[in-house]
Amino acid sequence: MHFDFTLDHQHSSARSGRFATPHGVVETPAFMAVGTLATVKSLDPVDLREMGAQMILANAYHLHLRPGDELIRDLGGLHRFMAWDGPILTDSGGFQVFSLEGLRTVSEEGVEFRSHLDGSLHVFTPESVMQIERNLGADVIMQFDHVIPGQSDEATARDASERSLRWLARCAAEVERWPADARDAQALFPIVQGGIHEPLRREAARAIRELGDWVGYGIGGLSVGEAKPDMYRILEVVDGELPRDRPRYLMGVGFPEDLVEGVLRGVDLYDCVAPTRMGRNGAAFTRDGRLNIKRAEYRNDPRPLDDECDCAACRRFSRAYVRHLFTSDEILGLRLLSLHNVHFLVRLMRDARAAIRDGTIDAWSREWLARYHSRPVTSA
Amino acid sequence: MHFDFTLDHQHSSARSGRFATPHGVVETPAFMAVGTLATVKSLDPVDLREMGAQMILANAYHLHLRPGDELIRDLGGLHRFMAWDGPILTDSGGFQVFSLEGLRTVSEEGVEFRSHLDGSLHVFTPESVMQIERNLGADVIMQFDHVIPGQSDEATARDASERSLRWLARCAAEVERWPADARDAQALFPIVQGGIHEPLRREAARAIRELGDWVGYGIGGLSVGEAKPDMYRILEVVDGELPRDRPRYLMGVGFPEDLVEGVLRGVDLYDCVAPTRMGRNGAAFTRDGRLNIKRAEYRNDPRPLDDECDCAACRRFSRAYVRHLFTSDEILGLRLLSLHNVHFLVRLMRDARAAIRDGTIDAWSREWLARYHSRPVTSA
Repeated sequence: MHFDFTLDHQHSSARSGRFATPHGVVETPAFMAVGTLATVKSLDPVDLREMGAQMILANAYHLHLRPGDELIRDLGGLHRFMAWDGPILTDSGGFQVFSLEGLRTVSEEGVEFRSHLDGSLHVFTPESVMQIERNLGADVIMQFDHVIPGQSDEATARDASERSLRWLARCAAEVERWPADARDAQALFPIVQGGIHEPLRREAARAIRELGDWVGYGIGGLSVGEAKPDMYRILEVVDGELPRDRPRYLMGVGFPEDLVEGVLRGVDLYDCVAPTRMGRNGAAFTRDGRLNIKRAEYRNDPRPLDDECDCAACRRFSRAYVRHLFTSDEILGLRLLSLHNVHFLVRLMRDARAAIRDGTIDAWSREWLARYHSRPVTSA
Repeated sequence: MHFDFTLDHQHSSARSGRFATPHGVVETPAFMAVGTLATVKSLDPVDLREMGAQMILANAYHLHLRPGDELIRDLGGLHRFMAWDGPILTDSGGFQVFSLEGLRTVSEEGVEFRSHLDGSLHVFTPESVMQIERNLGADVIMQFDHVIPGQSDEATARDASERSLRWLARCAAEVERWPADARDAQALFPIVQGGIHEPLRREAARAIRELGDWVGYGIGGLSVGEAKPDMYRILEVVDGELPRDRPRYLMGVGFPEDLVEGVLRGVDLYDCVAPTRMGRNGAAFTRDGRLNIKRAEYRNDPRPLDDECDCAACRRFSRAYVRHLFTSDEILGLRLLSLHNVHFLVRLMRDARAAIRDGTIDAWSREWLARYHSRPVTSA
């Protein structure tokens, strides 16, 4: 059994469990740090291990262009290349390819696009993307899907969702052609699309289930510009349609409050560039909302970024020191804030697991959200 | 006894010893990593500790301007501010102030200069610099000295050297006015100047010794543009003039070959920005000379930066991976090369200590230098 998902505790839609992969177990719900180019920006694998991160993410589109998925395969695969021996998930690059407005042509066969790096011409098809993800060798590989803007109308959303379904069948057929050991080492996750349109989401989820019994399920096309209540509503719809005994991965989400809201709606896995991107811009998550370390008020502040945080930055350094690093353009500043923010989300999900286990998830999440939203956010 | 220097082994001029400070012991000869702005660029104190670094350096000029030495004092001093509990040395800023061509006016009283950051007007005197270094709280504090270009004529060198001597007396008088506990916690090091002029170096060393019995001695004004044979010749002169039972610190040096040559000439402590600056530019020290990781030949090279290195980068990552990080502008690349280079010098001095202890320093240094110089250096 290379992949397995065990539910330990459930309370309404919230659940805690363990997702076993060929590279180890992920306790869920869990936040996956994003290592787009085979590095979680500014962090070392040792940092991720020390903070309790169990699974991380990389990107097929970016790694195909640079340094090349075949090169990574020849060097022993992504785990060895980036020295992370835990579970890895690769996103297919659908999101990136469809973001290349004006540089890409979509057909039923696939997407022809020009590299954002050098303008070179490439074609992604469901089959070629599977091959790229096989070369990278992540534990979980996402299907190639047709991604659309968050506010798309129903006709556009239906067209993309139905194409994504046909592409899912082709992805699965491609994987079926692989040798057994290759098939067993990687789990293909389908992606439920359908924008903010409930009927489309229901149809997509049902059609995906009719296509096969999947190891886990991606939920795509959210946190892409729609209002937060729309996202939460769609999560509730999808929660009702997906099998309860499989992990659900909400793609590209999110911010701390989104993770807490997602847990209440049956989501098990998350990823987002926010903690590292915001960290590089000087913003830190705290229990009381966001803090912008560049503000003058922190110039001589001896407190850690967050009084209750036990990350490697907060255990040792003052806000005054981190602010000094930022105002002096010192690399350690980017690193400490990135580390703090990723740790914040990893620990948030650890706390959520404990609350689910203890049966206190409702009260815990209510109090957590109330406090997080209670104070004015310092602009970041 | 807050400071103490014990010589363990000697072979000709080479020596190994232990320099005890209020924040711990430094085994010599030793390389001190440079943390100009209270951070060794891109590294964490944990990295430095793990690689065996025992003493680091910070800069009074830079920290006075940003974030301010009084702020650091109010936050508990430099050790706490930067979370480094081992020995620290602060350079006085003489080198920086005298580098501000056109922005400074020198008088017997001191130097008036404009900040390189915002043009604000400042005055450094021997007394004010001692106060800045007291606020920072490093274990070793360097005197304020008059620094001149490496190729200066004898008259210019004599004038600067004699002024540095008068300023040393004023630095010492200032420290004498401090309370006993402050005096005991910090050791003032004089700096032997005199350019590449042997008589001046002899005079400076003798005059400094007449002024007092110092905990240790700085050797300044080298590696500032003079030819390497000149530097080695001057080191031999100074070696003969300074007391053997005190640590000698060769300021701003250097490259691996300079460290080995210095050990043979009785130098105990070194510092240089080269390992971190070169690391950020893509150059790595190896036993076979320098390597430029950006070169195409390393694109799919599975070997570590240096086959014989046991640093945290070489234990885990290939040249191909580090090159990928560099070509993708990933921060981890800067960090791994900086870490490797500092580790290289720290370990080089550890190996030198072992060779002195074993009585093999002559053969060891000859073989080390021959191999390091034997292969063409890849441009960096």
